[in-house]
Amino acid sequence: MSNTPVYDQLAAAQLRLHHFGHLGSITHWDQETQMPAKGSEARAAALAELAALMHRLQTEPDLRDRIDRAGQEPLDALQRANLREIDRGWRKANALPEALVQAQSLATLRCEHAWRSQRPANDWQGFADNFGAVLRCAREEAELLSQQMGVSRYDALMDGFEPGMTSAEVDRVFGDLKTWLPGLIEQAVQRQKEQPVIDPVGPFPLDKQRALSERLVRLLGFDFDAGRLDVATHPFCGGVPEDVRLTTRYREDDFQQALMGTIHETGHGRYEQGRPRDMLGQPVSEARSAAIHESQSLAFEMQLGRSRAFVGLLAPMLVDAFGAQPAFEPDNLYRLSTRVTRGLIRVDADEATYPAHIILRYEIERALIEGEIEPADIPALWDEKMMSLLGLDTRDNCKDGPLQDVHWPAGLFGYFPSYSLGAMYAAQWFAAMRRATPDLDARIAAGDLAPVFDWLRDNIWTHASRPTTPELTLAASGEALNPAHFRAHLERRYLGRAG
Amino acid sequence: MSNTPVYDQLAAAQLRLHHFGHLGSITHWDQETQMPAKGSEARAAALAELAALMHRLQTEPDLRDRIDRAGQEPLDALQRANLREIDRGWRKANALPEALVQAQSLATLRCEHAWRSQRPANDWQGFADNFGAVLRCAREEAELLSQQMGVSRYDALMDGFEPGMTSAEVDRVFGDLKTWLPGLIEQAVQRQKEQPVIDPVGPFPLDKQRALSERLVRLLGFDFDAGRLDVATHPFCGGVPEDVRLTTRYREDDFQQALMGTIHETGHGRYEQGRPRDMLGQPVSEARSAAIHESQSLAFEMQLGRSRAFVGLLAPMLVDAFGAQPAFEPDNLYRLSTRVTRGLIRVDADEATYPAHIILRYEIERALIEGEIEPADIPALWDEKMMSLLGLDTRDNCKDGPLQDVHWPAGLFGYFPSYSLGAMYAAQWFAAMRRATPDLDARIAAGDLAPVFDWLRDNIWTHASRPTTPELTLAASGEALNPAHFRAHLERRYLGRAG
Repeated sequence: MSNTPVYDQLAAAQLRLHHFGHLGSITHWDQETQMPAKGSEARAAALAELAALMHRLQTEPDLRDRIDRAGQEPLDALQRANLREIDRGWRKANALPEALVQAQSLATLRCEHAWRSQRPANDWQGFADNFGAVLRCAREEAELLSQQMGVSRYDALMDGFEPGMTSAEVDRVFGDLKTWLPGLIEQAVQRQKEQPVIDPVGPFPLDKQRALSERLVRLLGFDFDAGRLDVATHPFCGGVPEDVRLTTRYREDDFQQALMGTIHETGHGRYEQGRPRDMLGQPVSEARSAAIHESQSLAFEMQLGRSRAFVGLLAPMLVDAFGAQPAFEPDNLYRLSTRVTRGLIRVDADEATYPAHIILRYEIERALIEGEIEPADIPALWDEKMMSLLGLDTRDNCKDGPLQDVHWPAGLFGYFPSYSLGAMYAAQWFAAMRRATPDLDARIAAGDLAPVFDWLRDNIWTHASRPTTPELTLAASGEALNPAHFRAHLERRYLGRAG
Repeated sequence: MSNTPVYDQLAAAQLRLHHFGHLGSITHWDQETQMPAKGSEARAAALAELAALMHRLQTEPDLRDRIDRAGQEPLDALQRANLREIDRGWRKANALPEALVQAQSLATLRCEHAWRSQRPANDWQGFADNFGAVLRCAREEAELLSQQMGVSRYDALMDGFEPGMTSAEVDRVFGDLKTWLPGLIEQAVQRQKEQPVIDPVGPFPLDKQRALSERLVRLLGFDFDAGRLDVATHPFCGGVPEDVRLTTRYREDDFQQALMGTIHETGHGRYEQGRPRDMLGQPVSEARSAAIHESQSLAFEMQLGRSRAFVGLLAPMLVDAFGAQPAFEPDNLYRLSTRVTRGLIRVDADEATYPAHIILRYEIERALIEGEIEPADIPALWDEKMMSLLGLDTRDNCKDGPLQDVHWPAGLFGYFPSYSLGAMYAAQWFAAMRRATPDLDARIAAGDLAPVFDWLRDNIWTHASRPTTPELTLAASGEALNPAHFRAHLERRYLGRAG
């Protein structure tokens, strides 16, 4: 036994936080899936009380000193990684003065609430009035964090989701994308014009969809003895690693959205279920970052779920569930799963056009946070970038433009890049997987998904937050984040080029 | 505004406890209704952390002084009642030394765990080995509480569930019951021999039962915008007043148990939903006692639910759900709902034989706690009392005798009386209701349940813990607890005597 009394105290305090977090996760999941309407006020009060308690525990005055003293103890590598993450958590919880936290909470509450009616009303000016306060708080937060961390203001915010990621790095990969993505999209759209697609004919009864989703989630290796699948208006993956709560939503006229959404959340869920058990309750056992989490959901949904091999497995399951129809013929189903359409709405975008939505938002929000532009500049910039990236006109249509996402009204800046970084990581994981298992697609087509799950478990899930993201990426794939894999994936799938 | 700063602080602390209790209630409900098996260890740890936090908050060193100082402030009547309940809660949380709480927790955990296999194995001796430690802790607890409260040891334990109730009072009402109950049961059994009953023929599909239960719960006035109905292995009523979680269980071969169980839990649920909103989060807004809570579930299940008038409403609902069959003819359904059968198992007992099970347990557990008997004496006493009260032989059958209940292995002494006190209160409420609404049964038969709900709301629910139980009883019914109403109810229903 090593002599690490201060570290042990810190670890015990983290475990306590983890237990309280458990109660918060489950009650939040309950709130989103099944809580009756009149319970919301009491629930909000209870969760606010919990948040205040957890904040008090994370800001106890002697914590800083204990973290420093623990660093002098003879820690092993895992403990040292855990202490690094404890330190990160401490800085995050202690960075902002109470007054700013409160001002921010008020500003985002007001802005988000008003946004819910301003968006359908296309009321940019009304939105901008509230958004000013949200942005001021975010800039103040970014400034404070920037000084503490010695990085740029936007990077300081992004660090909350992508530890260590910089805008220089994002510029590098997004800059690469911008050189070839618009052309690839155009080619894909032209190519698909020559490929007729038969649409599925509904209705698709909800109980059949539910049974099909459960079958699919099982096929994807999710452990139903350690989790559930339920319905939520805005699907998410919640709960705790020992009890992961997947959610999805069903529409009688369209089974595809639910099915792909379920596959997506299952990717998140398997990462959670696969987190290492030996340090559970400690920050080092937590998911590495938002982009790495998204790389799991997109590995499941985009890399695996929409692949020709997997669609071949899916087709007979659809016939079992809904009866045979021409649309369920595997080649047609694959064409349905890989349609490329330039659209105004990010959440409806396919994997080829999605990064365009992200690049646009990243460029605007970075300039906002760095003080290079003001809210009044957003609509014109949005128009310009949508035209150049996707050739779409959004003039006088803020509702399907900068008003479409909850992120900005909610004060969430620095998160958007994670979506597309996740897509790029996912492509990189599958490229590495194919090197390790050259007949991967044949194995998948034969119903053997073990090579996918085994690779992700061995290279991503079990490492959790022990390595940094660059260390994880290098160990898993032999190189740093490289957008070439994403490009090769898109070219193979949408332009028919050999990978 | 009155000047009550210390009281206000106490009230704020109670609200904090209430918020944490909310998280505990919902996650406990989740655990019992839907948590996957592998989540149990993490959930237990999270709930234990919450219990420890709440215990710390309830035992903060300066609380005693603040309660005393608040008592000197100019409180209004409601605040004073609340302070009385805060004081009660403080005494309960602070009465026992930490070492005893831990010893008790260990002893009951071990005893209850072993009991789960000892019961089916009819292993009294094995049980007695563990039960000794449980009883020693309970006696020590009772002794400590007895000294603090100046009441007998058993009364001190009972006070945890029935504030102010004494064994002298229980002896009075149970003593009354013992003089007439065995004779009444015998007469009812003889009378029912001449009344042939047609049994319902299943199966009763679970989805039909679920829909019927929901319809019934709605008819009983439960607000589904402030609660849910789900399935649990051991049905209970959980959640919080703003979000009440009813549970039931369905068996395909028997709809009656689920239906009556659902009505029972709905009674609990309406009490919870009906608790006054103006002091929510304060102890004074909580349910008055275990027996008063049970008086609501039994008012719904026994007084209303099995009445001839209500059965007349139920019959066409059964036909709607399962199709017509001879057993659903209202008079037959009423006979089915009011069968009297002497049996060994308490939880299967009907309302006429149920008190016999309770009297037996009360007499044994009181003698155990007062040190008049030892565990080794239980089987013989059980045999003797079962023979004298119900004429049943339980020799060498501990599994259907003293091993049948979880209460004693779980260290729960002093609770059993609440069940039958609840039945007596329920009869007393309905007697008062009939005085207020002489045509009550005609109104119920016509589908107008408002007089029942209005009376219970006005006389029980909205008062919560503001009055003491005797004050509540007197104000609601004009007299103290009087077992004559229960007797009259049983004689009317089972012997056909005019009420």
